[in-house]
Amino acid sequence: MISANEKLAHIRSEMQKNSIDAYIIPYADPHLGEYIPDHWQIIPWLCGFTGSAATLVITDSFAGLWTDSRYFIQAEQQLAGSGFELKKAGNTGSPDYSQWIAGNLNEKSVVAFDGRTFSVSMKRKLESVTARKNISILSDCDLISELWTDRLPLSSEKAFDHPIEFCGKDRARKISEIREQMKIMNIDYHLLTSPEDVMWMLNIRGKDLKYSSLLLSFVIVGMDQILFFAEENKIPMVLARTFDDLNIIMLPYEETDGMISTLPSDSTILLNPLSTSVLLQNAIPPGMKIVEDISIPTKLKSVKNKVELENISRVMVKDGVALSKFFYWFENQPPDNQLTELQLAEKILEFRAKNTAFLGPSFSTIVAYGENGALPHYSPATGSNSIIGNESLLMIDSGGQYLDGTTDITRTISTGKATAKQKKDFTLVLKGMIGLATARFPSGTKGYQLDILARKFLWENGLNYGHGTGHGVGFCLNVHEGPQSISPMTNNGSKTPIEPGMLISNEPAIYREGEYGIRTENLIVCYEYEETEFGQFLGFDTVSLCYIDKSLINLTMLNEKEIKWLDSYHMEIFDKVGPFLSEAENEWLKKKTSALQH
Amino acid sequence: MISANEKLAHIRSEMQKNSIDAYIIPYADPHLGEYIPDHWQIIPWLCGFTGSAATLVITDSFAGLWTDSRYFIQAEQQLAGSGFELKKAGNTGSPDYSQWIAGNLNEKSVVAFDGRTFSVSMKRKLESVTARKNISILSDCDLISELWTDRLPLSSEKAFDHPIEFCGKDRARKISEIREQMKIMNIDYHLLTSPEDVMWMLNIRGKDLKYSSLLLSFVIVGMDQILFFAEENKIPMVLARTFDDLNIIMLPYEETDGMISTLPSDSTILLNPLSTSVLLQNAIPPGMKIVEDISIPTKLKSVKNKVELENISRVMVKDGVALSKFFYWFENQPPDNQLTELQLAEKILEFRAKNTAFLGPSFSTIVAYGENGALPHYSPATGSNSIIGNESLLMIDSGGQYLDGTTDITRTISTGKATAKQKKDFTLVLKGMIGLATARFPSGTKGYQLDILARKFLWENGLNYGHGTGHGVGFCLNVHEGPQSISPMTNNGSKTPIEPGMLISNEPAIYREGEYGIRTENLIVCYEYEETEFGQFLGFDTVSLCYIDKSLINLTMLNEKEIKWLDSYHMEIFDKVGPFLSEAENEWLKKKTSALQH
Repeated sequence: MISANEKLAHIRSEMQKNSIDAYIIPYADPHLGEYIPDHWQIIPWLCGFTGSAATLVITDSFAGLWTDSRYFIQAEQQLAGSGFELKKAGNTGSPDYSQWIAGNLNEKSVVAFDGRTFSVSMKRKLESVTARKNISILSDCDLISELWTDRLPLSSEKAFDHPIEFCGKDRARKISEIREQMKIMNIDYHLLTSPEDVMWMLNIRGKDLKYSSLLLSFVIVGMDQILFFAEENKIPMVLARTFDDLNIIMLPYEETDGMISTLPSDSTILLNPLSTSVLLQNAIPPGMKIVEDISIPTKLKSVKNKVELENISRVMVKDGVALSKFFYWFENQPPDNQLTELQLAEKILEFRAKNTAFLGPSFSTIVAYGENGALPHYSPATGSNSIIGNESLLMIDSGGQYLDGTTDITRTISTGKATAKQKKDFTLVLKGMIGLATARFPSGTKGYQLDILARKFLWENGLNYGHGTGHGVGFCLNVHEGPQSISPMTNNGSKTPIEPGMLISNEPAIYREGEYGIRTENLIVCYEYEETEFGQFLGFDTVSLCYIDKSLINLTMLNEKEIKWLDSYHMEIFDKVGPFLSEAENEWLKKKTSALQH
Repeated sequence: MISANEKLAHIRSEMQKNSIDAYIIPYADPHLGEYIPDHWQIIPWLCGFTGSAATLVITDSFAGLWTDSRYFIQAEQQLAGSGFELKKAGNTGSPDYSQWIAGNLNEKSVVAFDGRTFSVSMKRKLESVTARKNISILSDCDLISELWTDRLPLSSEKAFDHPIEFCGKDRARKISEIREQMKIMNIDYHLLTSPEDVMWMLNIRGKDLKYSSLLLSFVIVGMDQILFFAEENKIPMVLARTFDDLNIIMLPYEETDGMISTLPSDSTILLNPLSTSVLLQNAIPPGMKIVEDISIPTKLKSVKNKVELENISRVMVKDGVALSKFFYWFENQPPDNQLTELQLAEKILEFRAKNTAFLGPSFSTIVAYGENGALPHYSPATGSNSIIGNESLLMIDSGGQYLDGTTDITRTISTGKATAKQKKDFTLVLKGMIGLATARFPSGTKGYQLDILARKFLWENGLNYGHGTGHGVGFCLNVHEGPQSISPMTNNGSKTPIEPGMLISNEPAIYREGEYGIRTENLIVCYEYEETEFGQFLGFDTVSLCYIDKSLINLTMLNEKEIKWLDSYHMEIFDKVGPFLSEAENEWLKKKTSALQH
């Protein structure tokens, strides 16, 4: 195996041969989503950094990795000795990678990247800052494939049907709903580059990614035909026949750009520049009108249908049972049994896996003891894998992909005697979580308006957390799935009105560096609360079902409404989860969910 | 005097002569601000509508007035018989005036307006929807001046010096601060089109508008010189001499566009497209680089300096004394004394006018009894001027321009026995007002994040109000003055971070059509609350000083924190305002501000 420095030297020599002054490697695959398969994990292979947000820039004298505040500590550790230096991105005032390039390259330099994994938006942003220096851009430059000899191939796992009892709406109806929207928008072709859009529309799921039930594929929706680009041998015959009936044409995955180039140039195509690669956009025939927006399936699937919502309720019980069994098991370990974070993560998986409809974890399980919890995206798989002690806080953030829904839940418990400071912090986070869970708001309200409900108690005490409060959640798809979000920023999905049927996380937190982290996360579903002369008002149902550690609550800090909410939430957990537990577990859960002393 | 229909006929015949298919008249003057002088009040003269937001569109077969929801009821009343129909603007789903033009005019039609009173932004928006129909735009078309024979001239009132003990920073320093920012932004010339920017920079005030202390003027700030465009005879000799020393060149008001056209074409000019007229922009020499942003003085003056803040504290006492005396007077009227809303408005003015530093009201006083209060921008001067009865709610929104600051305050009192519904509504509004007043938030927080604090209690009860929660307030300038605001929308100043020293209103409300309106408004100043390991946290000081009607409070709905806040606020009022009242008034105020019974 060659070292990081040898790889870097190799890339630099290729750059020199091709007169490239800067080479950019984003953390991305051709679908430009959050999760990417091993085959496209270029950044960890090249520099060792394993976070899920990064961009590398290499010049003859510099190699840097840009990532955001979630990963600053992790990146510093992982980049040591790699030849790459950490550059801080986000609201740090320091230049992002494109500004850095514009600032450090000479006039008329050449910047290159692999257009398969570089989005139209990323290219546009790069151009906007490099144009004034007449820097030119090469967008078909792959300097990795040849060098990376032991690269893993793409998965060959087969896709499978996602039956109507789970997804609630058949393919034909989804396709006709998409076409209706296309007609309203005057669109002839709709390019779907995000596999989750394809999965939702076709009611199939795949196994190409570790944490999302996706088949890597592209689709072009036309008014009569649908072109479906995927490895043909990954589609079972029975599915292929169903597709035939709907005039869905199977084509090889690699032919996507080629087919795009044959579309009629007097027609209109809808695509999302954030998830469309430069390669695919460059294939669009000159003259064809391009409309840019988030995709129609992204909008449609964000509002869960009735069957999906019923399934979500059921899957939350299953998930809650697994977690209850896990926490019961954990609390009943002998005191001298030194368990590691990874062992706990495996045990959670084991309990979830007992469900037949379980497909796998929905993200890399976070089990973070003590100060590890202060790293918001710590994972024992890539972190220190500490032994769980009996004197701090233990934060566990985990979730599952089930045929009948996707879960994501965080609980923080005390493994020793909680301090007053820990209790105060925990209770402030809890108050925020309840504040958002019990929100009532008029139709049309956006996520950026609601964010403060989860933060205000922290702010009143000079505390805060550096991430958003809530992300959309898919249905047996991605655990992070927009467009909706709840966040203080307005440059993303937080501008999307929260609609009835949307599933979203509610996860305020506090991270005390070197001490501990606290996060309490439930999933909530928006529903219609009441209609008055002032319009339609909405609310949230909390659907996740796992007890909240009462030993960490400072009861004097909760008001009556909050106590009532928590008591009733705990009662619901006991009623729904209890029946699926053993007698001993049931007894234990009864205590965990008993009413707070007033 | 000719009738509305005759005026319309006249305009249409002029349109025909000039081959104009649609003529647009915005509610605007050459400075494109909120308040406009009588000379430019074309819309009330033409169709009778007196609201402060409107656009007229006239074609050969159509005449329409677009206004927003604040004015729907008022517009329907005032437009009756005028020949103009009401078109609803805002989030109503119906087309705005430019969309209407694009939808209703034929290909290659001609749209015209007076480029003196049409902003660059307005023109751009119009072009963006009319371009696809090849509609052409005539931007130098004044069809009004000739027709409007009894039009009032512009004011000839003189400007005056705003002494340093009020404004706290001398002209030379303000000018050098502006130039510093210009250097950072690489700007050679800064066009100031908003008179408030000019007033602030030059430490002068004028009397050209009814409610704002402005001299209508333009300025071009260069690195060495400042060109100041105003009626020369409105500048007193002593001021003119001071300007000479600072290399401020006086030029006639009408020569602004002419002088712009002589600027060097290889230089850069900063202007705000929202407040720059098409006339002025068209005068910019070809090749000159235009940078668009809000003006530098707008940003600088939004953060009040220490002297201004001290003056604001003092002016609030004076204003509070005037209001206390007014409410004492009102409560002690004989029961058979049938006072009208206008009489009350005049009485408030009388009490404020007793202060030597008082210049005039800061906006048209709203005294709204009963159902009049349900019209958010009702004014007795243009409304029904009802007699104040003794069985409903009375809402009074008023403010003053003083040399030492600008005030804006709303109180709602009960003139009879308050109903349970009124009390509930009033208390929900009060809780929202206190919620925002007691907010703590990290540095960088924007107004759109805070808005919900004032609304959440209303939302929880299916109630809402259709306007923003807070607007910035000038210092002896405009009562509405950005850039900051607190609002659910993000298309305006609510994206501006709230900074220490900003003065802003806090005015949640509820309007029950046909019944009553409730609004409680105070001004608040942002200040640095505490610095923690999580950063700098900010808070608000409530600076307005007038009692809140306790007879309208449902005490069971307030929590301890809210009661404590109100008791301490009332105590502050009594301490600060009491000493300036007569013995009888003082006794009365003591009762009005006594602690709430617990």
